[in-house]
Amino acid sequence: MSLRAIEEKDIQYFQSILESKNVLVDQENLEKYSHDETEDISVLPGIVLKPETTKNVSDILKYCNQEKIAVTPSGARTGLSGGAIPIKGGVNLSMERFDQILEIDEKNYQVTVEPGVIVEVLQDTLKEKGLFYPPDPASKGSCFIGGNLSENSGGPKAVKYGVTNEYVLNLEVVLADGSIIWTGANVLKNATGYNLTQLVVGSEGTLCVITKAVLKLIPHPTQDLLILVPFRDSVQACEAVAKIFNAGITPSGMEFMERDAIVYALEFMGDSTLSIPDDIQAHLLIEVDGNNKEVLFQEIEKIMEVLEAFDTDEILFAEDQSQKDQLWSIRRKVGEAVKAQSIYKEEDTVVPRYELPKLLQTVKSIGKEYGFDSVCYGHAGDGNLHINILKGEMSDQKWNQELSLAIRKLFEKVIALGGTISGEHGIGLVQKEYMDIPFGQVELDLMKGIKKVFDPNGILNPDKVLK
Amino acid sequence: MSLRAIEEKDIQYFQSILESKNVLVDQENLEKYSHDETEDISVLPGIVLKPETTKNVSDILKYCNQEKIAVTPSGARTGLSGGAIPIKGGVNLSMERFDQILEIDEKNYQVTVEPGVIVEVLQDTLKEKGLFYPPDPASKGSCFIGGNLSENSGGPKAVKYGVTNEYVLNLEVVLADGSIIWTGANVLKNATGYNLTQLVVGSEGTLCVITKAVLKLIPHPTQDLLILVPFRDSVQACEAVAKIFNAGITPSGMEFMERDAIVYALEFMGDSTLSIPDDIQAHLLIEVDGNNKEVLFQEIEKIMEVLEAFDTDEILFAEDQSQKDQLWSIRRKVGEAVKAQSIYKEEDTVVPRYELPKLLQTVKSIGKEYGFDSVCYGHAGDGNLHINILKGEMSDQKWNQELSLAIRKLFEKVIALGGTISGEHGIGLVQKEYMDIPFGQVELDLMKGIKKVFDPNGILNPDKVLK
Repeated sequence: MSLRAIEEKDIQYFQSILESKNVLVDQENLEKYSHDETEDISVLPGIVLKPETTKNVSDILKYCNQEKIAVTPSGARTGLSGGAIPIKGGVNLSMERFDQILEIDEKNYQVTVEPGVIVEVLQDTLKEKGLFYPPDPASKGSCFIGGNLSENSGGPKAVKYGVTNEYVLNLEVVLADGSIIWTGANVLKNATGYNLTQLVVGSEGTLCVITKAVLKLIPHPTQDLLILVPFRDSVQACEAVAKIFNAGITPSGMEFMERDAIVYALEFMGDSTLSIPDDIQAHLLIEVDGNNKEVLFQEIEKIMEVLEAFDTDEILFAEDQSQKDQLWSIRRKVGEAVKAQSIYKEEDTVVPRYELPKLLQTVKSIGKEYGFDSVCYGHAGDGNLHINILKGEMSDQKWNQELSLAIRKLFEKVIALGGTISGEHGIGLVQKEYMDIPFGQVELDLMKGIKKVFDPNGILNPDKVLK
Repeated sequence: MSLRAIEEKDIQYFQSILESKNVLVDQENLEKYSHDETEDISVLPGIVLKPETTKNVSDILKYCNQEKIAVTPSGARTGLSGGAIPIKGGVNLSMERFDQILEIDEKNYQVTVEPGVIVEVLQDTLKEKGLFYPPDPASKGSCFIGGNLSENSGGPKAVKYGVTNEYVLNLEVVLADGSIIWTGANVLKNATGYNLTQLVVGSEGTLCVITKAVLKLIPHPTQDLLILVPFRDSVQACEAVAKIFNAGITPSGMEFMERDAIVYALEFMGDSTLSIPDDIQAHLLIEVDGNNKEVLFQEIEKIMEVLEAFDTDEILFAEDQSQKDQLWSIRRKVGEAVKAQSIYKEEDTVVPRYELPKLLQTVKSIGKEYGFDSVCYGHAGDGNLHINILKGEMSDQKWNQELSLAIRKLFEKVIALGGTISGEHGIGLVQKEYMDIPFGQVELDLMKGIKKVFDPNGILNPDKVLK
């Protein structure tokens, strides 16, 4: 199916249905909306549209579907797999005007939000009412809930509380032909037809455009404790992760950071309060939460007992909220800090938790074989390891030609360990060439069939996820 | 698409690929496999097949797909929406030989099971290792995990721990054309392509046949407390439900039983140890669980405080395990006991928790209007109310012709309250005529499109879920 470029008549049509501030064709804006946070990739859209209502979205999609114009939905453009890059030109459909928290239903522990609400704003607003929406990626201060829904985001709390899809009850979406539907109902359990809601979550804007979401909430835990554990051996740090769970503890945070990850983050933040001894290879940042401090102290004690079997340095017990904030802030800055070091590629591997040590060893041995350095960190409690491959001194030729072989080898090992190639960043643009590793042709054909049912003309985020 | 009946040549083919004990055409077996637990509906299959391996399932489906023969997958046939009734004849594909727990992966808190494993057997086996698989419908002593996956079952623990789909990591399934695929990966988070796993869960055997499931486990809580609270006003009992959650408590069980439900169950079980005072209209059975008894006592105290605002009789605090078992057993027997009273229809409505009182009032007022009695009970913490409509003295003509109007009116109110028509029993055969109430034509067309992608010839559980 061939899609066509934006023409003058399209601009006129969009100007007829949207306010002029919401129809952008100037170079500066086209550039601004040409990329997300994925490597250094950038492709200009033909036009940027900022709908303000579901009706706007419906009108735009209906028109583009008739005219065969590509539509790439975008949010805060903090994505790491290139999902919001308008690689086929056409419309960049920015959902930033959908920024309202529509209803906080305290009686039923539900919230109805628009997709352009910043995740941290949502969390903070809810917390004031004692309510908790747990999933929050490192970019929570800027990313939109709509992007989180589209990528099925995780974040550090997922280990105890689950990822985005576990909190989605119902979605208002606009289909490619402009139809507006709700995918489910505002209920905690639902056995009524196929689960369209769960099909849309994580579909990366390729099936429809989300215009409202009804999310499940839980009571906000009132207490938490946080420790930072330095390990002299990074493989041991990975091993400790599963051991802690096997002791019957479910931490609310279980983050792994290689030495370089934390060192780069401290440099990046200009933070000199924390010094990392030379012999430390990795850290675990471990949080427990709940409503009873005594129980949490017992849990930390149990964790300490497990850790005795490992070669750790002195454990830092966060003394107060400000130290907790500092430690979490370091963790949240790691991604940005590592990416500031070099041209990079980031892989978002996930394996069963116990296989983490093998995954880390595999990364390092493939790195040696292909001559790249890597910095690894991530949500170890979920078995989710973010692998940042740094170009450093690698030649352009090697980087451009050989690296994909190395990544392929890594992903094959991930699959062999029972894992898969993306835990929370999505496939988007940059991982789609590897989709034949987790899936065979039959599974890919099912996915293509589903895409065709939702979007027969292939206008929605074309050439993403699937080839 | 027209499907054809079983012929002699089909029997010969099936005998060539299966052992003779697994190919049944005698009247007694055809009758045995002609129904599940749904009302009094029964339709004979042309043949009953009991595959023993995934390869068997694949061969059977491949053949039936080529020959256009209906295949109705069945498990323990405890379903309540007619999903396992072979309404188009053809093959009843009984998965009862798939009865193995293949691997308990304690290190990763995962289990790999075949679909024919009885849920209680799975739970008990896991509990011995300190592991917990929470979803367990009232029929847990006989129902299969495969049926639970197909219907997205809930059960009393769902209120705290979630329903079946929240525990499914990966599925091996056979497609209509005989292809064998895995839908996902054995990981806690997954952002790799469309969520085929969640699409299959709850699809009621209409998209594919599940042959293996990898399920997430959690540590088994070590402590629980149980109370039975008698209310003089059944609407007040419903009101108390949301109030308890709003006090910040998440019980691990929150069951509602109308007076008749518990009275019938006690009669049915011949249990005279519990007497229900004349002025009691309803009960809540409330459980809290965790690992710290003191915390649980605090939670029960908080619940008691909330209950002070309601007109309750003396609260029964279960003294020991045997009394807990007795109370749960009464709750689990309610369905069977109520159904033994009269010809019945059961509706599986679900609404946001706070709307429960309105739902109950609606049921009773529609009952008055149309002249039927009803007994209501269910998982009140989830807003999931099972409504048993009893035929009693109603004329056949009224029962057969007017009742569906009453049900339609009820379901319309359920939707207006933000709910939907099935919380955990599925749509199957008996609710499909009402699917136009929760969904419009666009949503139904999407579902039909998805069905077509998976099963182009429409052989898998034909005429279920969708018309």
